[in-house]
Parts: sequence; C-alpha cells; structure tokens
Amino acid sequence: MNLKTEDYRVKVGKTVRLKNWSTDENGGLDKAEGKAWAKALADELAHWQERLYAENRRSLLIVLQARDAGGKDGTVKHVIGTFNPNGVRISNFKVPSEEERAHDFLWRIHAQTPKTGMIAVFNRSHYEDVLVTRVHDMIDDNTARQRLEHIRNFETLLGDSGTRVLKFYLHVSKDEQEERLQARLDDPDKLWKFSAADLKERALWDKYTKVYEEALGTSTAAAPWYVIPADRKWFRNVLISQIILDTLRDMDPQFPETDLDPKKIKIK
Amino acid sequence: MNLKTEDYRVKVGKTVRLKNWSTDENGGLDKAEGKAWAKALADELAHWQERLYAENRRSLLIVLQARDAGGKDGTVKHVIGTFNPNGVRISNFKVPSEEERAHDFLWRIHAQTPKTGMIAVFNRSHYEDVLVTRVHDMIDDNTARQRLEHIRNFETLLGDSGTRVLKFYLHVSKDEQEERLQARLDDPDKLWKFSAADLKERALWDKYTKVYEEALGTSTAAAPWYVIPADRKWFRNVLISQIILDTLRDMDPQFPETDLDPKKIKIK
Repeated sequence: MNLKTEDYRVKVGKTVRLKNWSTDENGGLDKAEGKAWAKALADELAHWQERLYAENRRSLLIVLQARDAGGKDGTVKHVIGTFNPNGVRISNFKVPSEEERAHDFLWRIHAQTPKTGMIAVFNRSHYEDVLVTRVHDMIDDNTARQRLEHIRNFETLLGDSGTRVLKFYLHVSKDEQEERLQARLDDPDKLWKFSAADLKERALWDKYTKVYEEALGTSTAAAPWYVIPADRKWFRNVLISQIILDTLRDMDPQFPETDLDPKKIKIK
Repeated sequence: MNLKTEDYRVKVGKTVRLKNWSTDENGGLDKAEGKAWAKALADELAHWQERLYAENRRSLLIVLQARDAGGKDGTVKHVIGTFNPNGVRISNFKVPSEEERAHDFLWRIHAQTPKTGMIAVFNRSHYEDVLVTRVHDMIDDNTARQRLEHIRNFETLLGDSGTRVLKFYLHVSKDEQEERLQARLDDPDKLWKFSAADLKERALWDKYTKVYEEALGTSTAAAPWYVIPADRKWFRNVLISQIILDTLRDMDPQFPETDLDPKKIKIK
C-alpha cells in the first residue's frame, strides 16, 4: 500500500472547507491489514526516532487538535505509544491557570517545546486560543487575526531553530462523535471520560467548523496542517504514523560522528 | 510463576552489602517464558494505570538508578514503554546546569514530581547528588549525610501528599557491564552511546559500591528501594513490571464517582 500523504496536507495559502474533506477513509485496506501496516510502520519509526535522539541537533513537535472525542488521546496511546518514551514528552494544555493567564498566550506553550533530540506532543495546543475562545466570544475577530499571525511567527521561529512542526486536525463526523460520546455513557469504565460540557460544545458544531477552517489557514511548509479522516481509528493511526515517518526520513537525522577509534579502546 | 517481590526490597533500617545481592536471576523461567509473562503484566499494568489516571488524586514516582550501561534506558523503553504515554512523564537528570546549581540540590527534582493521576519516571535522580558527587570528592561525608536526611524528608513529603515512590537500583555485575560497553564499541549504530567517561567511572567500581550501599539505606515504607538483578534484561523487565503492578494494586485507585445518570442523557 502506498498512501499519498500529501493529499491530506493543507496547501499553503489555500482556504479549507471541511465539508469537502472526508472523515471516513480506509486507504483501500481492511482493518486487519491496516493494523498490520501500522505495526510495520512502528518498527521503522523506532529506528528513525533513535537517529533523531542520537543526533541531538533537531527536534519534532506534533500538534493534535480535534473536537471532543475526536481521537487525540487514542492517537497518543496507539501512535505515540509505540515510540521510545525516553525521547518523547506529552503536554496536555487544559484551561489556563491563573499564572498562565497572567502571561501572553504563547508563554506556557513555548515552555513545552521540544529539546534537541526530542519529540514533543501537544494534546491540544496554542490553537485553542483561536478556537474555543472564539466560539465563546472571549476574543473578537481582530484579536483572533492577530493571534493567528503570532502563531505563524512563533512556528517560524521554531522551524528556523531546528524544530519541525506537524499539525494534525483529527476530522470526525458529527455522527461518529455521537457514537463515541454514547459509548462513554454506556460503559461504566468509560463514564469518567464523559463531560456534560462536551454536549454544549457539540451544540456549537458549525461555529467550531468555521474557526477550525480559519486556523487551518496557518499551514506553512515548515509547519503544515494535515486533515486526518478520523472516523476509523485504525486508519487515523496508519495515516499519522506514515506522515511522521515521511517527515523523519525527510529530516534524515544522522548518528553523530565520533573521534573514537573503537578498536583502540580496551575495557579493563 | 509467582515472584516474591519483597525478597528484592531493602528492609527499612537494614544495611545493604551489594556483594550479597544477586545480579543474575531468572525466577525459574527461560527467556521466552519471561517475555510472555512481561507481556501479560503489561496488559494488567495498562488497566491499573488508567484507573490511577482517571482517579486523578494520587500519583506514582519511579526512580531508576544504575551504573553506566546498567539498563536504565532499556527499562524505560521496555517497561515504561508499555504504558499509555499520556499518563507518563520521563525526566532525565544530567549534570546540573548553571541555573540548577544556583539552587539547592532538590530544586530541579521537585519541579519534576508527578501531578495527580500521573506516573513520573526519573532516569537518574536526586541520588546522583550523593553518588557521583561523593565518588569524586565533590562533597564531604558530613554533607552527604545531611543530603541523605534531606532526601528522606523530601520523599516523606511526597508520600504524605499522595505520591508513592518506588526506587530501583539496577544491579549489574562488573563482567556484564564490560560486555555491554564492548557491545557499544562493536556496533556502529551503538557507538554514539559510548562515552570514554564511562571507563573512568568503571575504574571507580568499588567506591561506587560503597556510596550506593549508603544511598540504599534511605529505604522507607513510603519510598522503598529495590535491588533488581539486572544482568538479564528480560528478568529485570519482568521483576520491575511486577513490582509496579503490585504497588498500583495496593494503591487500588478507583474510577471517580459521578452524579450523572447516563440513562438520562440524550445526545442530540
């Protein structure tokens, strides 16, 4: 199988209409084939992650955004969970604390960007500051445009400093979200994940669509957005794994050179 | 198989002589059986980790200490790597930075202790401040004793605040260390892990033994030390997994109660 990952990338300067992007794809595979493929990708990813870590000069930042029950946690568990945890740091950005709100909106984000050699994963991110805040009219359009420009500049700074940025919007249908929220209600072991607040956000579906479309306009060569068809969890996992793998291959990290001559070293 | 994990725990107030502790055990299993068992443990650990995360009231701190090539990174990869990464944070403590040295020795450590619901892993830790520093005579015995007392108090603070602490000393033989260092020299893809400094530390083997034995004296009920026979990597993984599992079961985290009646909620 050969996934054309660029088909899911938002072209620079292009306006996104989410209704034209599929939520439900299988890449011509069935579920068992997809899972086998994800496993093969995981082995290759492990190799490239080790090279990134060993090289210790550049880093990778993975941004996960989605509606509630869109699959952010599942992506962390099943895709990021295959990586060597020594080289990964996950940051969950929730409602800002009082201290965080006393700074500019990128302050707490900047503090969590990856060190050289590392892969950082943002489970929600600075994009919440142009999404949930807009939907609830906490900021006006002018502030939103200003923030989007600050985000662009910030991501350019990261890119110029050796951090590649990959941004994934996990695109689920309204029906699929309903099924997943219902599944949380039906399973006592999942009930803790259910929040009545999710239903309020669901009622604002179209408003979210609109602000997401604007946020996806920040796709750049150094920090592209990908719209991931996410109704099928296994396909989401395969596609994201493939995009990360392609990116690491393109970065082509190298094991560091050494002056040591291993033959001349004697361990006593 | 039934591992008596308490056999590997350092009893409170007991003086450790490492030469009396085995580096090489198999628990009556062969390697294939051990790996199968580790896999079964991983599934159970995932369940208990989810409960800890969902409960969101307490946390777990895992401290990994070992000589060079003792298996800290391998433990992170193979044991911690089976956890849901969303609930795990790894901290690698290297030579302190200038800013870190301008504070007390527990300052940078305290900043990395786990939030509620989380498992934190310290790959090296505050114990380096009574190990490498002592071996190289950077601190005197009086300062070391003072620091050990501060460590005890600090770990008691964590315990009283809902954080369980598990401390693992990965116990390898001098021969096994030689083999592992040699393996790094022999494999071009592993050569980046080799550091000439490791040979200097190896030459101080007996001095390290002595200071480790004193550090292991900080075993308490709330923050026990375990001496893990670590010459066989698969046995190390099984034993550590079993100890973490026993600990989580003993903590017995619960899915949170909710006032919601799932039958009364209708998703529109």
